[in-house]
Amino acid sequence: MSIPANHPRRESLLIREKLVEGYKRNIVALEGLIAHGRGECFDYLLGEKTHGFALKAIRAAVAHLLLAKHPVISVNGNTAALVPREIVELAEVTGAKLEVNLFYRTREREEAIAKHLMEHGAREVLGVGDDASATIPELFSERRRVSPRGILIADVVFVPLEDGDRTEALRKMGKTVIAVDLNPLSRTARMASVTIVDNIVRAVPLMIKEAIQLKSMNRDKLEEIVRNYDNNRVLQEALETILERLRELSSSQLILQPY
Amino acid sequence: MSIPANHPRRESLLIREKLVEGYKRNIVALEGLIAHGRGECFDYLLGEKTHGFALKAIRAAVAHLLLAKHPVISVNGNTAALVPREIVELAEVTGAKLEVNLFYRTREREEAIAKHLMEHGAREVLGVGDDASATIPELFSERRRVSPRGILIADVVFVPLEDGDRTEALRKMGKTVIAVDLNPLSRTARMASVTIVDNIVRAVPLMIKEAIQLKSMNRDKLEEIVRNYDNNRVLQEALETILERLRELSSSQLILQPY
Repeated sequence: MSIPANHPRRESLLIREKLVEGYKRNIVALEGLIAHGRGECFDYLLGEKTHGFALKAIRAAVAHLLLAKHPVISVNGNTAALVPREIVELAEVTGAKLEVNLFYRTREREEAIAKHLMEHGAREVLGVGDDASATIPELFSERRRVSPRGILIADVVFVPLEDGDRTEALRKMGKTVIAVDLNPLSRTARMASVTIVDNIVRAVPLMIKEAIQLKSMNRDKLEEIVRNYDNNRVLQEALETILERLRELSSSQLILQPY
Repeated sequence: MSIPANHPRRESLLIREKLVEGYKRNIVALEGLIAHGRGECFDYLLGEKTHGFALKAIRAAVAHLLLAKHPVISVNGNTAALVPREIVELAEVTGAKLEVNLFYRTREREEAIAKHLMEHGAREVLGVGDDASATIPELFSERRRVSPRGILIADVVFVPLEDGDRTEALRKMGKTVIAVDLNPLSRTARMASVTIVDNIVRAVPLMIKEAIQLKSMNRDKLEEIVRNYDNNRVLQEALETILERLRELSSSQLILQPY
């Protein structure tokens, strides 16, 4: 279906179509579609734009990736469907490895995602089939399997659109975990080392830009960015922004006139 | 998958299963699953219960339906999947006609929904195939087609789970529009004449109860209910409730320690 250019929710509907297309290509799980809807709601509360607190988190996240010895980007179905080219570019510019890791893991879906990333320029995708031969202490059995060249040895893991259990498991292993989550109250958001409260389709392109800039900085500068970052403060600012927006809207006239 | 009786999110998971089942039976569109996720989030913010503002809207909505000359209930995939028996009963008790009207319209889905409603006791379902022979001024071409015995001539239309464009188009035609929407800030919620900010699975059974009570009232009383109803106030109360709950949820320290 073609969405009119002047539709007020055009962007949001186009993103939905990408996910539906991803589902049809066996990249996205049905549960991933419902999960996306929940994120949409918080994006709405954020005014569907990137705020200052997200920019601070993006800067710290990129500094972590650039400082890391073994940075890894963990890719799930929704991420692959929404920002395949961007996630490949981010891996390229930060020197991170790409690894497929799925909540609802099937061999077919792993392979479909890896293929999709390859079509968008990835040179290597870890975590597919026999490559996921190592195991980590994780609640959900299918996610225990990781690549010994990827998540197993990673010091910094970027897990966009992940859940709380996964984030906690990786943190317990001593890893720095970077998450993208539109809900600042989710367990993922509260458990990550750096939480980017933003829509992944806006955040990842900004991460690429930031990485190109920060790459020319020396390590001292990057370490300073990391040291000065306060995730609790960032989450509070995100929550305050949502509260402020709701407060503003609740005091004005809400009903619209169709005439 | 069987969900344990004591699972904290049991209700919510059972509703999801109904939608996934509806998808497999060609009643629900993939986009409908995403839209449901979005609603889930707002239901969470509302504490997953029916509030006073929703009860007020339900009362006004039912009064409108009972006063109407040509009341019509517009049914989409999610509504049919979630409350098929209840929506048929509501039509029965208020004397409203049922009409299928879909954002993502296909002949197969129209028929699957009509069949589903028939299986749940509907005696007539408008808007299927050639019956949708009239057109109304609408942005999306597929939704322009309505039944000349239904939405075309309706003075009151109940459009649970609809979008803003549809609501606006119907209001522009001078119709009274009743919506169910968990998001009090959506264009649908703000554009409708009466907005029930509640989960459809809780709201429709309450509408049936209310209709049985209000049916014994005379027209003057019903007109008084309609006259005294203030949709702006109802939306403000819904927003204030969400604000209050977000405030509660936000503790001073947001970050969690995995150790």
